[in-house]
Amino acid sequence: MIPLNTPSPALLRFKYRRGVYFIWKKTGTMTAALLEQCRERIRTELDRVVDFWLKYSHDKEHGGFFNCLGKDGKVYDEMKYVWLQGRQVWMYSRLYRTTERFHRPEILEAAKSGAAFLQKFARVQASSGPGKCAFCLTRDGRTVKVQRTIFSECFYVMAMDELSRITQAKEMQADAESMMDQLIFWVQTDSSDLGRPQLPGDPPINSMAVPMMLLCLVDQLTEGRTDVAEKYKDLSGWCVERIQQHIQRDGKAILENVTLNGKELPGCQGRLQNPGHALEAGWFLLQYALKKGDVQLKKTAVDKFMEIPFHTGWDKQHGGLFYFLDVDGHCPTQLEWNMKLWWPHCEALIAYLMAYSHSREPVLLDRFKQIYDYTFAHFSDEEHGEWFGYLSRQGEVVLDFKGGPFKGFFHVPRCLYMCEKLLDGLLEKQDS
Amino acid sequence: MIPLNTPSPALLRFKYRRGVYFIWKKTGTMTAALLEQCRERIRTELDRVVDFWLKYSHDKEHGGFFNCLGKDGKVYDEMKYVWLQGRQVWMYSRLYRTTERFHRPEILEAAKSGAAFLQKFARVQASSGPGKCAFCLTRDGRTVKVQRTIFSECFYVMAMDELSRITQAKEMQADAESMMDQLIFWVQTDSSDLGRPQLPGDPPINSMAVPMMLLCLVDQLTEGRTDVAEKYKDLSGWCVERIQQHIQRDGKAILENVTLNGKELPGCQGRLQNPGHALEAGWFLLQYALKKGDVQLKKTAVDKFMEIPFHTGWDKQHGGLFYFLDVDGHCPTQLEWNMKLWWPHCEALIAYLMAYSHSREPVLLDRFKQIYDYTFAHFSDEEHGEWFGYLSRQGEVVLDFKGGPFKGFFHVPRCLYMCEKLLDGLLEKQDS
Repeated sequence: MIPLNTPSPALLRFKYRRGVYFIWKKTGTMTAALLEQCRERIRTELDRVVDFWLKYSHDKEHGGFFNCLGKDGKVYDEMKYVWLQGRQVWMYSRLYRTTERFHRPEILEAAKSGAAFLQKFARVQASSGPGKCAFCLTRDGRTVKVQRTIFSECFYVMAMDELSRITQAKEMQADAESMMDQLIFWVQTDSSDLGRPQLPGDPPINSMAVPMMLLCLVDQLTEGRTDVAEKYKDLSGWCVERIQQHIQRDGKAILENVTLNGKELPGCQGRLQNPGHALEAGWFLLQYALKKGDVQLKKTAVDKFMEIPFHTGWDKQHGGLFYFLDVDGHCPTQLEWNMKLWWPHCEALIAYLMAYSHSREPVLLDRFKQIYDYTFAHFSDEEHGEWFGYLSRQGEVVLDFKGGPFKGFFHVPRCLYMCEKLLDGLLEKQDS
Repeated sequence: MIPLNTPSPALLRFKYRRGVYFIWKKTGTMTAALLEQCRERIRTELDRVVDFWLKYSHDKEHGGFFNCLGKDGKVYDEMKYVWLQGRQVWMYSRLYRTTERFHRPEILEAAKSGAAFLQKFARVQASSGPGKCAFCLTRDGRTVKVQRTIFSECFYVMAMDELSRITQAKEMQADAESMMDQLIFWVQTDSSDLGRPQLPGDPPINSMAVPMMLLCLVDQLTEGRTDVAEKYKDLSGWCVERIQQHIQRDGKAILENVTLNGKELPGCQGRLQNPGHALEAGWFLLQYALKKGDVQLKKTAVDKFMEIPFHTGWDKQHGGLFYFLDVDGHCPTQLEWNMKLWWPHCEALIAYLMAYSHSREPVLLDRFKQIYDYTFAHFSDEEHGEWFGYLSRQGEVVLDFKGGPFKGFFHVPRCLYMCEKLLDGLLEKQDS
């Protein structure tokens, strides 16, 4: 396959004839060639990634999935992370349900095995509220760690809802919805069951992750269900408002944490920027805005949540997106701040391609292409398949495993899956 | 000053006359010259470090210390970390009490201000046990975060005990001892007041930090007090035994976490090596062994806790000590595993110099010198004073602040202070 950063002979001829290099991007035919190349690469890559997890991650003895896989797929730790189990069930189910070449029994069986493991072991048998899930389990399902947050539970909802759409299991769907109700109660009414004490110096804040995650869940639960959409209508509005509160500094910055009134917080916490998270929020908002036909929100999603993190987050010296930045230019206190992580690049690819799909603004395709080139040159492992997750600022692989406590079967395949669908749409329209 | 890795003209002449380079290290006179050079540099560096914190870290409005200081000393966040407050009180007090040039009123006043701040605000006003301290406070002392560990409390003990040795305040000494009793109860009898739930997949383990920390506290509390030494005699033995349980793999590895019976734990947690921590444990053990005249323990401290982490931890390609390693060569899951942090180098300097002081084994001086050269070439900031804390594997500064949530007025000055004292001892003996 021709790497995209080396124009093919055809493109070079084109460039020579016209004498202006950038035209190849803007001309319909050439854009189609570019998009077709991307789709081909992305499709192949998705197949390899799915194969990798199918081959190495299934625990045939205890059910569920091994999460910690070395660069060659070998299990280097048997811990099972509940949120990663949930994500893997969701991803398998989504692929099975929506993409013909993944509509294979082994994929459905794997999703079912993961869901059964979660239903059996994920909930904490303690006094921490009816729906509280563990963060981490032993291979055979004993609780190792409980986080005082909502994220294990969120991916439990996604897993059960998506799988129940295939199996038509009403009980499983009800399980997802009842967990969702629990989540809404924790977030909007009373979080004390999460176990985090209220402390006088630590008032509740609006952390980007929470409204983002809930908006994602609403999207999941409401697909094709008008009654459920009606039930969560207010919640979506609440999420969208909460996410937009992160636009700060006269519209020039997206900050990761703000007060509940949408004001800037003092110190490092308040100045923190997470470009990958902003970009992910960007495509969540854009997707919602497109569904609602909300023109203003579409513009906000692109201008604020996609353009700002690109300008602040792209490393002009070495390429790639920084993990964390401080809006005033102080050094972040996170040791990994200047590393290049796989997932912000995944979210960026989805964001720019989704935005380009709907606006056809060439600059958005440029952004996509820039991230695409960096991503495929640095993260994808030609030798063993799947992607490395953690690079130094200079782009060298620093942690070489394919799966770990924070990297599962999720960001890479979701990105490839969504980009493939978006490219299908773009090329279809191009053809018509 | 002549950098130590460039032999001075005198040393070069010496080398030329004898024709064998290494002799200059082994010859008494030349060793004395080397040690004298080191002492001079270390003394100057300690003065600069003390000046830095005296100048920039004092909160004259609310008491206590700012912990988050940028490379030039500017406060970039006002949070006050209880363990770092305690460490700063301890360090000021220790310098004031034991080193003539630091016996200055402003240093004692600073220690008192920090102690008053801690006594007023450190304890959590909640249901988490009588002695539980916060991990982090707002500038004016409101609790931000409580960790379910013992370390804030440990440094509270160190602070109060050391300061009370100067002021002769019996109440403060009693405060330290009562917190110590509380710590022993949590560690040896019942940890439930720490707030960490007992989970079926997470049995209690022997984590190196706990017995190390308690041994350090015993050393603090018993100095010059035979009655207190008697009281904690069993505890010291317990700590020494627990620390030695971390010698694994037929004596060839020091592992950070083991079972309560001293067996290896499964997975990443069990395979984790932290060379800096092992080296720190090494000098804690050596110090204890010297006090007790325990020849076997002296040997264990050096052969196991100093030699092993040097051989496994030193980066042969880029120099410096790695932060984390996996004993089987897997990639650690800590994103910062290959970074070079200031504190392991501080602990290594103390360890090798202490070991050399007592054995006069030239190889231990070589180790000291190797760490010394790396440390002063990379961490010390000639421009603004104090040390950078966080370097890339290649030795570039990645986080440029001088103080942060995990870096205060402690490892650098303790290292310089202890090395100066050890060098004083060595040079005195050399002269006599």
